[in-house]
Amino acid sequence: MIGVSRIIVALDSERGDKLSLWLNLVDSLCGRVAGFKFGLPFLLQYGLDGLRASRLLCDNMFIADLKLADIAPIMVNTVSLISDYIDAIIAHGFTGFRGGLDRLKEYLDSISVKLIVVASMSHPGSMDVIDPSLDRIMDVILKVNPWGLVAPATRPEIISMLRSRGLKYKILSPGIGVQGAKPGDGLRSGADYEIIGRFITRAPNPIEVVDSINLEHSMILEGKN
Amino acid sequence: MIGVSRIIVALDSERGDKLSLWLNLVDSLCGRVAGFKFGLPFLLQYGLDGLRASRLLCDNMFIADLKLADIAPIMVNTVSLISDYIDAIIAHGFTGFRGGLDRLKEYLDSISVKLIVVASMSHPGSMDVIDPSLDRIMDVILKVNPWGLVAPATRPEIISMLRSRGLKYKILSPGIGVQGAKPGDGLRSGADYEIIGRFITRAPNPIEVVDSINLEHSMILEGKN
Repeated sequence: MIGVSRIIVALDSERGDKLSLWLNLVDSLCGRVAGFKFGLPFLLQYGLDGLRASRLLCDNMFIADLKLADIAPIMVNTVSLISDYIDAIIAHGFTGFRGGLDRLKEYLDSISVKLIVVASMSHPGSMDVIDPSLDRIMDVILKVNPWGLVAPATRPEIISMLRSRGLKYKILSPGIGVQGAKPGDGLRSGADYEIIGRFITRAPNPIEVVDSINLEHSMILEGKN
Repeated sequence: MIGVSRIIVALDSERGDKLSLWLNLVDSLCGRVAGFKFGLPFLLQYGLDGLRASRLLCDNMFIADLKLADIAPIMVNTVSLISDYIDAIIAHGFTGFRGGLDRLKEYLDSISVKLIVVASMSHPGSMDVIDPSLDRIMDVILKVNPWGLVAPATRPEIISMLRSRGLKYKILSPGIGVQGAKPGDGLRSGADYEIIGRFITRAPNPIEVVDSINLEHSMILEGKN
């Protein structure tokens, strides 16, 4: 028996992909995963109609991973245009509080959309500016009080460090599969969810991959792995 | 006689705005300004069709201000979807180099689209993490070697500091008008362009406002103001 899934599937569309590819994926994985995450390429390619169509297929958590990092009025305007179709949105902690994440959070609270804040990223370039600024980013996060954080499975020591602070925020960890981390690496370090894209979406049989990761996750969570 | 304009008009659309409002603005201001900048709200509201329609009206510089801050494949995919309609794109310096801005810059060079990197932002929250990290962000910028930088007219000392380093990059300064800085504040501090949104776009007569700012700018550049 597999419990609640800890997988968030990244719908990382590439130029040329048909919307039907993603609609089929959402339809077939709905209920087997915790949720779906889409980014700017998906929104630009398929527009609000594509997002609406995906959402109608599945009521799992939908996360808009726009990596928002702008002044508050722009972030609020952006979210207002997609808020009917999402449960959560990802913004950068780097953006800062006043005139930035403060007003975004207020707005999101008013429309019951969750805020997820990037603490650190999965690519090596995250070590240039973001990781050395992690203490300052955490100060912003504590003020913002989001629902969740993003921290990379590619550098699990960051997840462990965040978890060790006893914070109540959910931790979502990207970087699994093509980027180098393995399924389970995020959860083992203390993450609540693993964000997995191409490793699932470009697999010959995505359902099989999801089922097998869910099984591995449940063993990790039961302490057997 | 007014020389080349230093104004970049921010097409900051809000929910409910009709596309025709922006098409009329682009049409009437074309040739009187240096260029136009649009963000996520514009793209989500009007889609690629709206962007294409704007672009067809005017061949001034079009800047996609998406504040990109993601891993390289996502940034590259995003740009590939709009590259036919833009001359430049804005990304965050804090994203870092390896697996981030390095590959974005390579891709942009290959399609002759300019990269503009955010050094600092116009809202107070920029002082939380971004400004204290400016030295590290500048290290990234020097490696990336972009066409231009963004630095805020609301904190002109940052523009002056960047200018004093003798860097060849163009400096674009937002924050003028509603955000508190005055037209001319950016240029006086050493910026090459001033990004101005609502102060122009929501004015009863945007052409008059643009003409008057162009005049003031030309006096500043001739050292008379």
